Amino acid sequence: MRALSSTEVSSLSVLSIACVAVLVNAWRSDGEPLFASLAISGLAFAFSYALIPWTGDVFIRRGYKGKDLSKKNPIELPEAMGLLSALVYLLAIVNFLPFAFKRDIAAATFAPNDKDRIIEAAEIENGRFLHRFPLEKLASYGFAYGTLATVTILGILDDSFDMRWRHKFFIPAFAALPMLGLYFVDFGVTHVVVPLPLRPYLGDLVDLGGFYYLYMAAISIFCPNCINILAGVNGIEVGQSLVIAFLLLLNDALYLSPKLHQPHPAAESHLFSVYLLLPFIGVSLALLQHNWFPAKVFVGDTYCYFAGMVFAVVGILGHFSKTLLLLFIPQIFNFCYSAPQLFKIVPCPRHRLPRFNARTGLMEPSVATFDEDKPLRPIVGEALKVLGKLHLMKVETDGKGRVTEASNFTILNLWLVWRGPLREDRLATEILVMQTLCGLAGLWIRHSLALLLFTADNRF
Amino acid sequence: MRALSSTEVSSLSVLSIACVAVLVNAWRSDGEPLFASLAISGLAFAFSYALIPWTGDVFIRRGYKGKDLSKKNPIELPEAMGLLSALVYLLAIVNFLPFAFKRDIAAATFAPNDKDRIIEAAEIENGRFLHRFPLEKLASYGFAYGTLATVTILGILDDSFDMRWRHKFFIPAFAALPMLGLYFVDFGVTHVVVPLPLRPYLGDLVDLGGFYYLYMAAISIFCPNCINILAGVNGIEVGQSLVIAFLLLLNDALYLSPKLHQPHPAAESHLFSVYLLLPFIGVSLALLQHNWFPAKVFVGDTYCYFAGMVFAVVGILGHFSKTLLLLFIPQIFNFCYSAPQLFKIVPCPRHRLPRFNARTGLMEPSVATFDEDKPLRPIVGEALKVLGKLHLMKVETDGKGRVTEASNFTILNLWLVWRGPLREDRLATEILVMQTLCGLAGLWIRHSLALLLFTADNRF
Repeated sequence: MRALSSTEVSSLSVLSIACVAVLVNAWRSDGEPLFASLAISGLAFAFSYALIPWTGDVFIRRGYKGKDLSKKNPIELPEAMGLLSALVYLLAIVNFLPFAFKRDIAAATFAPNDKDRIIEAAEIENGRFLHRFPLEKLASYGFAYGTLATVTILGILDDSFDMRWRHKFFIPAFAALPMLGLYFVDFGVTHVVVPLPLRPYLGDLVDLGGFYYLYMAAISIFCPNCINILAGVNGIEVGQSLVIAFLLLLNDALYLSPKLHQPHPAAESHLFSVYLLLPFIGVSLALLQHNWFPAKVFVGDTYCYFAGMVFAVVGILGHFSKTLLLLFIPQIFNFCYSAPQLFKIVPCPRHRLPRFNARTGLMEPSVATFDEDKPLRPIVGEALKVLGKLHLMKVETDGKGRVTEASNFTILNLWLVWRGPLREDRLATEILVMQTLCGLAGLWIRHSLALLLFTADNRF
Repeated sequence: MRALSSTEVSSLSVLSIACVAVLVNAWRSDGEPLFASLAISGLAFAFSYALIPWTGDVFIRRGYKGKDLSKKNPIELPEAMGLLSALVYLLAIVNFLPFAFKRDIAAATFAPNDKDRIIEAAEIENGRFLHRFPLEKLASYGFAYGTLATVTILGILDDSFDMRWRHKFFIPAFAALPMLGLYFVDFGVTHVVVPLPLRPYLGDLVDLGGFYYLYMAAISIFCPNCINILAGVNGIEVGQSLVIAFLLLLNDALYLSPKLHQPHPAAESHLFSVYLLLPFIGVSLALLQHNWFPAKVFVGDTYCYFAGMVFAVVGILGHFSKTLLLLFIPQIFNFCYSAPQLFKIVPCPRHRLPRFNARTGLMEPSVATFDEDKPLRPIVGEALKVLGKLHLMKVETDGKGRVTEASNFTILNLWLVWRGPLREDRLATEILVMQTLCGLAGLWIRHSLALLLFTADNRF
């Protein structure tokens, strides 16, 4: 693959030097976790950015490669490069550890009769909350790391062995086990707050017991898989993950804002979330540079699983998994919309990504055709015609009114049905803008409308 | 690959049912971590035992395969199957978690004014120590998991991408980072006890500071690599790992013996070690069944790294890394003995495993030849002749007294020089017996002779 240009080399060098300087400074003072996390994320960005072109050839040689079918002259591109992002992320998370806990270590090693130091300890207790890292989160940190390392292993296996869909689907559940085990041991909170209208029947809290673990397992299965399903256009896997990450950061900021009475009870969970998300944003931005239209690398299932699991970890260990789901509205829609094809109610072609029209250079909706060999059941055909009338699908019928083809059941194809042919990067951009708007609406619902269902927004 | 025989299926089923019964029982009482760990290790054995033949073909198809050159009719065998052991191990470790901490969870959720329960809590505090799992080890548990998952990722990458030796060597250091990070945050103890003869000069304790981290990193690099180097004969990688694991268990038992005043201060660290080692023994025994002469699968670098890292984790987080090294005597010897070839002081052929003599069916020492093209430096030649005279090597000279060939510099070849040609399984057995004897001697030194150097064996 190509070498880095001299502009890239110098920009990355400047960035790295600046980040190292911030880190050294953070270490000399009391750790300053927030600055340290930002600096480490900057280094993670620079390192992944450089590592991807350096190692692309090795991936191709070992058979991790594929052709980009949405280009006029498709060449072989390295596949599964998201693995590098995952590895750099894990490295970043570990190197953040000493900064995260430096203050607490200092506090823990005080001589008990040293007056100045006790004052300092009190200061630590009530000091700048943004710079504190919750020491009781140490175990969470370890298990979060374990979960993300496991999902990376399973992602590599998936990318290597081309697993079957029905096996792949449950991969994230296996990876989530460390996290669920920790939840069991460390929190064990399986009560949920009951919405106001149901309280007369259920009381204020309901203990879901074992079902709560099933719910968390479902979140862990859902987040990675739904990112994996909303794919097929350059940059869309990384792009949607970045949008979710930024929205989660925004949500965290709402709890950490100095305008609230601090320390807010949920502040620690949201700090934990910030410190897990910043390096994720670093490595993902670097990957996006290489994966955005026209893509020079593919990200692979590894990245999708890894990204989805970062969100699941943050949501579950941070105790805001319901809020998390509000940021997955387009993915949830895409999953439901895809269901008829995923569950084989409607014939599903091997690939469902939008079709590239080589003449115009634009993307068009790809279609599934239903010929004599594999006809639709009449009731399904009627349903498709209704969807067609509602502009939720493009449907073609023959003379007898039988459905002969329909656009494939993905949000990307639906968008093209609505908007007409688009260039690949335009399509990706529009989807990401739509996703951002949905996410902002989700957060607004969470923090405003939820007051109608619950007595208090736990932000206050 | 072959299916499981009906005897195997019925034995594995009986074992699994018995283990599940023990687990259910353990759960109904107070978790009983020791029994639960044994039962989970039994299940891990059964699962790995079955999984290896089931998935062998998939590995071969994806290119993870190799020929066993020490057989008369070499066929292709699946390579890197140790990956399965590592995955089952990680699964076992996670599933042990709820059992490990059940008592503590029960204790933590007591109502403070419930008298009976307070008594029960006291009982837990002073109860059967063997069944207690240290709650403050939760973070250790998470980071141990993270370290082992990371070394598995890197093992897969090594087995997939055929990394260069100089890169491979440092793989374990990267994987050890989570553990070192935890050590930094959670213990931070970098003092070592000074041996008696040196105390007048250094004092009782010396703070090694940053050097202690380098020392731990060195342990993490050394353990995995030296298992990887002592390889090349069916069953030797897994066999030596099992010997070390059993010796470590023996060492743990010395601290946990009811004859000592309990709870011993180091008991918790050694319980942690037991709970990490039992499932390791389970998955390794299963792998050994398939890898022992005549091997049906190869274990791959993944297994060697993974096994070595289990020992490094146990030794470092259990604070007995020096004792650990005493169990690595044959590996340390092999590493030093190999050094001239590893560091290219003496020409090193591509493969150094013992040579198979197809006529006799026995293994003989393989040799490195030094012809006119790549002659030895005279001083090195003289050194080899001395080693030859000491029976530490087989050396051939030409008429002029110049060394023309020497047996390769591994402990396996040296053993064959001493013992004459041996069948492959005989060679492996003898090495393992020798290793066991060395290890027992090491433990004896640790617990008896050490009293001459230190004021007290910390066992008492």
